[in-house]
Amino acid sequence: MTTRTLIRDLAHLPDGSEVSVSGWVETVRDQKKVQFVILRDETGSLQLVNPATREGDEAAATNPEALELTESISTLTHGSMLSVAGTLKHDERVKLGGLEVKIGSVDLASLSLPELPIAEDSSVDKRMDWRFVDLRRPDAQLLFRVQTTFEHALRGWWIERDFIEIHTPKLMASASESRAELFEVPYFETTAYLAQSPQFFKQMAQSAGFGRIFEIAPAFRADPSFTARHATEFTSVDMEVSWIDSHENVMVMHEELLTAGIQSVVERHGEAIRDRIGVELVTPTGAFPRVALQEAREKVAADGYTIPREDGDLDPEAERRLSALIKAETGSDFVFVTDYDTAIRPFYHMRHDDNPALTKSYDLLYNGTEIATGAQREHRIDVLEAQAQDKGMSLEDLEHYLDFFRYGVPPHGGFGMGLARVIMLMLEQTSIRESTYLFRGPNRLQP
Amino acid sequence: MTTRTLIRDLAHLPDGSEVSVSGWVETVRDQKKVQFVILRDETGSLQLVNPATREGDEAAATNPEALELTESISTLTHGSMLSVAGTLKHDERVKLGGLEVKIGSVDLASLSLPELPIAEDSSVDKRMDWRFVDLRRPDAQLLFRVQTTFEHALRGWWIERDFIEIHTPKLMASASESRAELFEVPYFETTAYLAQSPQFFKQMAQSAGFGRIFEIAPAFRADPSFTARHATEFTSVDMEVSWIDSHENVMVMHEELLTAGIQSVVERHGEAIRDRIGVELVTPTGAFPRVALQEAREKVAADGYTIPREDGDLDPEAERRLSALIKAETGSDFVFVTDYDTAIRPFYHMRHDDNPALTKSYDLLYNGTEIATGAQREHRIDVLEAQAQDKGMSLEDLEHYLDFFRYGVPPHGGFGMGLARVIMLMLEQTSIRESTYLFRGPNRLQP
Repeated sequence: MTTRTLIRDLAHLPDGSEVSVSGWVETVRDQKKVQFVILRDETGSLQLVNPATREGDEAAATNPEALELTESISTLTHGSMLSVAGTLKHDERVKLGGLEVKIGSVDLASLSLPELPIAEDSSVDKRMDWRFVDLRRPDAQLLFRVQTTFEHALRGWWIERDFIEIHTPKLMASASESRAELFEVPYFETTAYLAQSPQFFKQMAQSAGFGRIFEIAPAFRADPSFTARHATEFTSVDMEVSWIDSHENVMVMHEELLTAGIQSVVERHGEAIRDRIGVELVTPTGAFPRVALQEAREKVAADGYTIPREDGDLDPEAERRLSALIKAETGSDFVFVTDYDTAIRPFYHMRHDDNPALTKSYDLLYNGTEIATGAQREHRIDVLEAQAQDKGMSLEDLEHYLDFFRYGVPPHGGFGMGLARVIMLMLEQTSIRESTYLFRGPNRLQP
Repeated sequence: MTTRTLIRDLAHLPDGSEVSVSGWVETVRDQKKVQFVILRDETGSLQLVNPATREGDEAAATNPEALELTESISTLTHGSMLSVAGTLKHDERVKLGGLEVKIGSVDLASLSLPELPIAEDSSVDKRMDWRFVDLRRPDAQLLFRVQTTFEHALRGWWIERDFIEIHTPKLMASASESRAELFEVPYFETTAYLAQSPQFFKQMAQSAGFGRIFEIAPAFRADPSFTARHATEFTSVDMEVSWIDSHENVMVMHEELLTAGIQSVVERHGEAIRDRIGVELVTPTGAFPRVALQEAREKVAADGYTIPREDGDLDPEAERRLSALIKAETGSDFVFVTDYDTAIRPFYHMRHDDNPALTKSYDLLYNGTEIATGAQREHRIDVLEAQAQDKGMSLEDLEHYLDFFRYGVPPHGGFGMGLARVIMLMLEQTSIRESTYLFRGPNRLQP
């Protein structure tokens, strides 16, 4: 392994240390008497310096290596990857962390073409074309470090509570929810579908007696929408637990889980997020507010907004307004909207005993946008079949799913949550294209 | 939330405690004077007892609830899910952990059909048809707990070392490795392919300056094989790191990572694995043996086996023999086979400077079977292009991939490892169908 010191760790080394650093060139200032290179690695930026030896200088004759070194530095292009061995100097006058490395030797790993294909002011679409260059931005790297920390905290929360991690298949013989927006895959002699969610298979784990499970994995929707929050492939965060009494139990776990995730991000990256992205991330305290959908509609109407939908669901503008109202009332960035109308929920959401027009379900809004849907599931096979038929679904198509409920199944519920949405909203990004490693949309399959 | 005590935790409660347990019926012994139910949950089994009150008994008249309770217990079928409130009794004569709960009340969540569709001696294929019932077996549940612990330990190892977790897209515009065995997906006006591995996109993270990344995610191969170790969809464990000198650096990280994973499994489940599965799992100590492919061929030949392949690669029998020889020589369950012939490796594996017929690559064998392939990647664009052409590949098809190498890229390498294979071999299972939640093969898309 290249014995390499990360730039972040240089500050702890004594003056005069011989070090080796590796990274890419951010800028070269090639002055007559001295050359400066700003080198970046995944942890920071560093100034490298070399007293130039030029053709015709007295030193060039006696020290051809110095001439060669100067000339090799002159050829460096922005983006080139290299390792540099040199001597560390603590110098408070240097802006970049008060450190400088005097170049001893350069080992060029890979020279970049002279012109990078994108600049800071390139359009999002252009940046997505060259995502690997775009991702070198320190704020982009921070975003994926935040995501890494967030996911690890969620998994830690689950593991502490004895959840089992499952990997459900993404190739299915039938649709998981609706036939709309499904990708079809020719599969040997038959046709498979790409899973829109792990819904059926995470419920299967409840029949299997797993008790509590989680999964973070891709899901697919052949959704032709072009919005800031839709993708054809996305990372779905899923949890499902047995022996609940209602969706309220799921919400309690959901808010504890998210609080643990955000707390971990605040502890590890709070300062960097403030400095780099200008967002003051705060760990939520206590329970998230709950508002029944009916009350949510009334609040939004009282706020002067008429929802342009017939079905009674909130539209994105209503979600934004509701979130703003709740934020003003309670200070919370999150709000659970509960008890959705049966008409706008899938057949497997449990309905209220005392009011079958309402489901035991919720959506979770974060900073104005929906990030998750949860519910208690209907586990009583006779009721489930009736609800499926009620929605015009074919029991035959659902045969394998319905089987899960014939040999004993506990009451259960859970949620699915879009990872890129959570990170987008946490870091106040304008689109999930910024919080997805490689975005996939109707017009975007590359790189 | 149902206030529920896990069966595992009952032993710590005092005699006479009022408890509520939830789970499924394993057996009912419905005797004239007394009823016994064995209840199982995700943590263990428990004996429930009820002194029977029968029609015509004196007590039946004075205590109709007792009659009703007895009758409801009589109707319980194997697999039915229920919650039971009752009184805990410590009684050393009870085989199941010296505990018994006297039933106070039964809350039936879901009655199972009277005949379970599979029995202990059902064929693997039949068991896969009813996987959710099959997974109720305690050894199956243990397997997925082991997998959960193993994965969490891997992720912990990575996180401690500042790796970034990435989620690469599974929908690609072009093939990631070869055009063979690719699933095609009609994608709006064009065609997408399901990723066979995250290879290209994990390399992209190196161009992006991420330094070190990992991913655990599905991968897809339209592989018509029927073997104990192939699936059309599998969970791939991937790692990729920058600034390496050779594949040796990758192997060192790979063996440390696996050792951390197995150590965590041994600590948490070693006893249960011994008791339930009869496997004595031991944490590896020190480095795994390395054997160059050429030497591996010689060893297997000296062992009296002629490999029935023309291309110089090991076949499964050769892998088993080599592993047995290494195990006898060194005691190691693992062996790295290194320096594969260029002819049998993908174009992006780096070749040895002093011998371009050999690659800087390896396979890792575990208890006789290949679980992973690793390599240093070729990062020099001119060499990479020449190697691709050498393999008869179209540079045009690879355009977006080759772009990753034009704007600076560090030397890098990594590996891909099949999760279900690791768990299969760790727990001495006969097929990855046992170590996959829901197996997918050419004939298997359901449930």
